[in-house]
Amino acid sequence: MPGGAPLNLRSFLWRGENVFPDSEIVSRTHQGIHRYTIAEYAERVRKLASALEQAGIERGDRVGTFAWNNHWHQEAYYGVACMGAQVHMINLLLPDEHIQHIVADAEDEILIVDPVMLEKLEGAYDEEAFDSVEQYIVMGDTVPETSLEPVVDYESFIADGDPDYSFPQLPEDQPAGMCYTSGTTGKPKGVEYTQKMYWTQVMSLMTSEAGIKTDDVELTYVPMFHVSGWCRPFTTIAAGAKTVLPGPNPSAEDLAKLIEEEDVTVSAAVPTVFMDLLEYARESDVDFSSVRYFTSGGSATPRSLMEDYKQEFDVDLISGYGMTETSPVTHAYEPKPGMTDLPEEELFDLRSHSAGLPIAGLEFKVVNTDGEEVPWDGESLGELWMRGPWVTQEYYNAPDATEQAVTDDGWFKTGDIVRVSPEGYVDVVDRMDDLVKSGGEWIASVEVENAVMGHDEVVEAAVVPVPHERWDERPAAFVVTRDAVSDEAALRQEIKDLVAESYPSWWVPDAIRLVDGIPKGATGKFSKQTLRDEYVDESVIETVAENAPAT
Amino acid sequence: MPGGAPLNLRSFLWRGENVFPDSEIVSRTHQGIHRYTIAEYAERVRKLASALEQAGIERGDRVGTFAWNNHWHQEAYYGVACMGAQVHMINLLLPDEHIQHIVADAEDEILIVDPVMLEKLEGAYDEEAFDSVEQYIVMGDTVPETSLEPVVDYESFIADGDPDYSFPQLPEDQPAGMCYTSGTTGKPKGVEYTQKMYWTQVMSLMTSEAGIKTDDVELTYVPMFHVSGWCRPFTTIAAGAKTVLPGPNPSAEDLAKLIEEEDVTVSAAVPTVFMDLLEYARESDVDFSSVRYFTSGGSATPRSLMEDYKQEFDVDLISGYGMTETSPVTHAYEPKPGMTDLPEEELFDLRSHSAGLPIAGLEFKVVNTDGEEVPWDGESLGELWMRGPWVTQEYYNAPDATEQAVTDDGWFKTGDIVRVSPEGYVDVVDRMDDLVKSGGEWIASVEVENAVMGHDEVVEAAVVPVPHERWDERPAAFVVTRDAVSDEAALRQEIKDLVAESYPSWWVPDAIRLVDGIPKGATGKFSKQTLRDEYVDESVIETVAENAPAT
Repeated sequence: MPGGAPLNLRSFLWRGENVFPDSEIVSRTHQGIHRYTIAEYAERVRKLASALEQAGIERGDRVGTFAWNNHWHQEAYYGVACMGAQVHMINLLLPDEHIQHIVADAEDEILIVDPVMLEKLEGAYDEEAFDSVEQYIVMGDTVPETSLEPVVDYESFIADGDPDYSFPQLPEDQPAGMCYTSGTTGKPKGVEYTQKMYWTQVMSLMTSEAGIKTDDVELTYVPMFHVSGWCRPFTTIAAGAKTVLPGPNPSAEDLAKLIEEEDVTVSAAVPTVFMDLLEYARESDVDFSSVRYFTSGGSATPRSLMEDYKQEFDVDLISGYGMTETSPVTHAYEPKPGMTDLPEEELFDLRSHSAGLPIAGLEFKVVNTDGEEVPWDGESLGELWMRGPWVTQEYYNAPDATEQAVTDDGWFKTGDIVRVSPEGYVDVVDRMDDLVKSGGEWIASVEVENAVMGHDEVVEAAVVPVPHERWDERPAAFVVTRDAVSDEAALRQEIKDLVAESYPSWWVPDAIRLVDGIPKGATGKFSKQTLRDEYVDESVIETVAENAPAT
Repeated sequence: MPGGAPLNLRSFLWRGENVFPDSEIVSRTHQGIHRYTIAEYAERVRKLASALEQAGIERGDRVGTFAWNNHWHQEAYYGVACMGAQVHMINLLLPDEHIQHIVADAEDEILIVDPVMLEKLEGAYDEEAFDSVEQYIVMGDTVPETSLEPVVDYESFIADGDPDYSFPQLPEDQPAGMCYTSGTTGKPKGVEYTQKMYWTQVMSLMTSEAGIKTDDVELTYVPMFHVSGWCRPFTTIAAGAKTVLPGPNPSAEDLAKLIEEEDVTVSAAVPTVFMDLLEYARESDVDFSSVRYFTSGGSATPRSLMEDYKQEFDVDLISGYGMTETSPVTHAYEPKPGMTDLPEEELFDLRSHSAGLPIAGLEFKVVNTDGEEVPWDGESLGELWMRGPWVTQEYYNAPDATEQAVTDDGWFKTGDIVRVSPEGYVDVVDRMDDLVKSGGEWIASVEVENAVMGHDEVVEAAVVPVPHERWDERPAAFVVTRDAVSDEAALRQEIKDLVAESYPSWWVPDAIRLVDGIPKGATGKFSKQTLRDEYVDESVIETVAENAPAT
């Protein structure tokens, strides 16, 4: 038949090993800094694959990881996936019951564990949920005292592996990886990544200016336990770039030191990481001169953060966008030709209101509640639907969720509400579930939150829908202030005025409650479900009823 | 099933149209310069697809093109491929009997013809060979006087096409394009390109520094009738770059004018084009300041040409490599990290002896006559084998050729003899068929030719094997001199001495014949087969027998 060979990760490992054998991988571990080359890496990857085969792992089996970003973890990425098994990265930050659900659902046969996370895993252990696990492998060359068994250290496990192990030619639909959504509502759902999904995502991560290039030094901050580390651990090998892995729970100081000492050029993380790093950099005068750009994703990046990095350190902080179901990256910010001449103010405006342009190779559309496409006018809101080779078309073991999320013609409904500028820049406004549906119209909770947080006294704010007889739903705001407040009524009025300055009057919250803190989920995002279930009580409903607009 | 949507060209057209609607396509036609945007382009692509459907073209049918690079041709690329049919680009430069073979073999149902090529096609017409052709479409808005029928002009043909035509979701193994090898031996062989092959090649053309980027202005010189124009007509749309199409048989002056007037940043062509352009640029002081780089491929690029461009015009001329069977690009030159510090001399050395590094996503190996891999030591010769998603695994309608060229595990044997440097740079030495096999060892005919052409008096030289009783084969050289030669014997000795300076004595040709010209094939390469069949006569064989080494 015509048509080329199946898409597979093996080709990337081949390229890294043969064309860029001397590129370095620098790994901060519990034992200190470890350095080796891609050539050494690849040999160990083959030993791991061979040892897994000897241990009985077969095509389609799952090998779980429970670890920070280190070289053992990166070895597991290629080693497990290229031998035909599936590397399942378990999110360290999940509550025990979610970990139990995930291990049981994925039926992991082996778990490869970071020694610094051993205690956490022991705590999450449940005999029934962990029934499938036949072997625990602890990264490093010693086995700490542990209740988990049977257990072996990683170095002993791969010692007899074959350094000349030959990877099979796999079909491109072979599942190669797996992650679970950190769903703020309900149990995490599994997403499988095939060889093709990884291959196409990795190629796409090399296409744009904001990609990873051969002469880059990538600080892989994005946790490898979080959506395949945004596929950057696969991409650095394919590109032959130098990789820096920051290890267990890195602090801003750890990151700054690695950036300075290893001449880091690119990195990606969630906005809070860059906030902490900025604060540290200001105190300690960090040298960012090697940096080409930082990508901020996972949630909206404040404009002020982008401006501060640029003005104080001449570092470009740009947005990326994606989700567990999309492998994950689908959009990245870059200015279009001609735009580079725009005034800096306008560019920051665009940057901060943009998840970016769609990466080549996929399609999207924005759909309203009637199922119709809305125009790219910078105003019309709708749900983002995506389709492409690295966008999933199925949740694992969850046919109902799949049916809800995937259309017959292969569109994945992201559940994100967006508007698109005439130039094609996507602005993520809210989660569909978090929108306040007031009188048939949508109020974007995230935008109201940002307006509320514009008040000097407010450090955190979350807006959720409250049931209302006439309007169906109305917004209520939960607010954390910097200091104790003497005149609550005055503060409420100031907040309402602030929202009314930027948005229609019917977007103004009808109830504002001061709280000590906003409940958060495993990835640090607000848990709106907890707020709706536990914070929206009779008294909030009454306040809303009193203050809601009459017409 | 898990796994994303099928790979298809539609996603690239979608991106170009929606994200970069205003990017320009500038087309030099028989009627003068034509300009429009990608938005207008995409609408006409849909009208063409719809009109083809109305004309009875179905999934899997073939639509041939016989044209230079213009906007109609580029519309046919996406229009035919995205509707599920196959665009078959016919090489204008082939002899009539090859064109007949190709049209008959591909069973083209429609031929879309450049009006300036109408006469050539009429000349090639053969009732039996062209039996499958049901419609001729002539680019432009008028039908010239022609013997071909039924015939319609392109603009009338698409006039009733639906501008809102919706492209189907095609399987990724759907053949989307087709080209024939311009085989210097035997009849051209067909290679089909699937949606997947095109998708992966286009993505790969956007990954490297030497790719096409959004802010590039691409002068698509590579003929669209030659291996899908190296897939650049697909890539510019995906990247949203500005495209410049140079139209019928462009001269060096035409190219220079387009480069200056349209601010061209990148282009690709065969070395002879860049030689002509250089000569013109010297006379006319062409302004190359907009140029980022030129890619030279198709045959080896002389070092002097690279140096001259750099020194005289500050233009980087770099190598690319590929072939009809590989969609075509598999290698591209770029310096590895750290190499940019090397002295210019060394870099030119590397550049001129290198087809480049393998592009991410495929694998290659170099195999000797025993089927064993040879080391990457910059010396060992072997045949280049490739495997990857945009490397074919089948010739069309030619099971014997397929069996010869494709291994059971999917490696395509290129027939090119190469050596690979320890850094992974591939140096193409010769065609397997053109090697001189002397006493069980290989003599690279191309290298000997280059040495011979180093003689001041020599303008062209071709080296071919001559049968020999003891050594099996020995080299003979056919040489074209600048001026009439007074002392042939002296010239022969000077040439032999020159070869012996750089190569072992047994590489020195045993016969050197002066000729008026070297026979060439359709793409301007030496036709070694004609030389062997017609020029190697009894007298040459005798001379070789006299002069061959004794031991």
